[in-house]
Amino acid sequence: MANWFCNNEPVEHVSISDRAFQYGDGLFETIAIREHKPRLWEYHVQRLAKGCARLRISMPDEDDLLQNLHDALRQGRAATAYCMAKIIVSSGAGLRGYGRNVAAEPAVFFGVFEATRQPQEFYRDGVNIVLCKTHLATKSVTAGLKTLNRLEQVLARSELTDSGAFEGLTLDADGNVICGTMSNVFFVANNKIITPSLDDCGVEGVMRRHIMTTLSEHELAVDIGTLHSTDLQDVDEVFVANSQFGVMPVKSCGDLKWPVGGVTQKVMSILADNGVVECGL
Amino acid sequence: MANWFCNNEPVEHVSISDRAFQYGDGLFETIAIREHKPRLWEYHVQRLAKGCARLRISMPDEDDLLQNLHDALRQGRAATAYCMAKIIVSSGAGLRGYGRNVAAEPAVFFGVFEATRQPQEFYRDGVNIVLCKTHLATKSVTAGLKTLNRLEQVLARSELTDSGAFEGLTLDADGNVICGTMSNVFFVANNKIITPSLDDCGVEGVMRRHIMTTLSEHELAVDIGTLHSTDLQDVDEVFVANSQFGVMPVKSCGDLKWPVGGVTQKVMSILADNGVVECGL
Repeated sequence: MANWFCNNEPVEHVSISDRAFQYGDGLFETIAIREHKPRLWEYHVQRLAKGCARLRISMPDEDDLLQNLHDALRQGRAATAYCMAKIIVSSGAGLRGYGRNVAAEPAVFFGVFEATRQPQEFYRDGVNIVLCKTHLATKSVTAGLKTLNRLEQVLARSELTDSGAFEGLTLDADGNVICGTMSNVFFVANNKIITPSLDDCGVEGVMRRHIMTTLSEHELAVDIGTLHSTDLQDVDEVFVANSQFGVMPVKSCGDLKWPVGGVTQKVMSILADNGVVECGL
Repeated sequence: MANWFCNNEPVEHVSISDRAFQYGDGLFETIAIREHKPRLWEYHVQRLAKGCARLRISMPDEDDLLQNLHDALRQGRAATAYCMAKIIVSSGAGLRGYGRNVAAEPAVFFGVFEATRQPQEFYRDGVNIVLCKTHLATKSVTAGLKTLNRLEQVLARSELTDSGAFEGLTLDADGNVICGTMSNVFFVANNKIITPSLDDCGVEGVMRRHIMTTLSEHELAVDIGTLHSTDLQDVDEVFVANSQFGVMPVKSCGDLKWPVGGVTQKVMSILADNGVVECGL
């Protein structure tokens, strides 16, 4: 059984002329499959559509995407009750040079993988994170999007090797916290929940959006704010979130320590009731 | 005959797990082959080594690179007296997620293509360029490098479709001119030659380096400076440069017009005597 599919056929290779390989010219989504269904599907589709519009790539038909995803899950090498899927949209076959062949169709790839189940004590006791030295470039025209240009995350992630940390926070060049290498970050201070703006850099995670939407339905606001790394010592609670693991309390970042506080627990409880089963473990 | 080679074998495909495809995790060089030899080879190797160091990818052995390049030229689908070659260094086969498999070896690919010969009148009369709306993110940790994360150049280049322009200048978000989509740019003002700093974004072209080094040997300084797009109206001459076409005078950018001036002609003449045959056409 295969991991990757394109046009419903198993694929192990892509054309060396594919522009995703040559220039990172494309987008991707990493989707949690829960009870055989893609969680937060509409948010993934909407982010992908926004990315396609920004990158001027034709957005694949949404029904086709869902059908092909289910076909990949049926054929794929994973227990699909609880797994993860990845969709890659490349701008397609390339000419030499940055200019696209305007006649080229986007190529869409569907990957199916076993999910990584995080230990229960991570949700109960929190995880250790670090500050990454790799900073994010600012004022990016692809800010917020999940493009295939991910060198900053690769470099930031490589700092974690041997650290034992669950995640690393990336800052902009001015030292403001933006997001994790694979997650978004939330801070609790004076009972207010704050998450950094992603207008200039970073990725707008679908779980971040789900948290903000769901909490607002419970009359809990999440403010978009600026938080300098030196302000971390003044926050009361920290949690990180992504599409796969849901919400995870943070218990330390370097020398700073936090409890798994009441606000984080309340957020996890609300999320557990709203489709993020991991938060209820 | 093939265009692409890896380990001296023709290749048309790469593994879908290759991190260049998944994340743009790698570097490339585009090399002019002149009289069967790679022009400015040492500069290409030095930039690649700098990129490998910054990206923490093992730098391939320089002698192997040159040997494999010559093997690709011998086997490749191009008249190798005058063609172009592309070397792609990917961080290699991937795990899922941003973290690299530390045991993975870099994968190196060699492409051989016909050169694009620019019309003689471009060198004589100059070319038309435009200002791109796509701006470059600043304070990038990969500033100066030729990584496989090239979405900004792809988007900027796509603005040129139907414009008839030879090149587009990209600015940073503050409106400072940084470089072209596929070239570096030089301005002449009050008989001084200025080229933008690439410390925060942009690509340090090998031809830019060759120009600066060669001119300094002729006691002609090139200053690294800041030039806002609104200052373009005050410059006397403009030229662009890259590894393939050498130096090309610019005659217009939107409504602004410039002559092919004496400094540009002198630069072209010096370069023509220093291995850049295109400038002597």
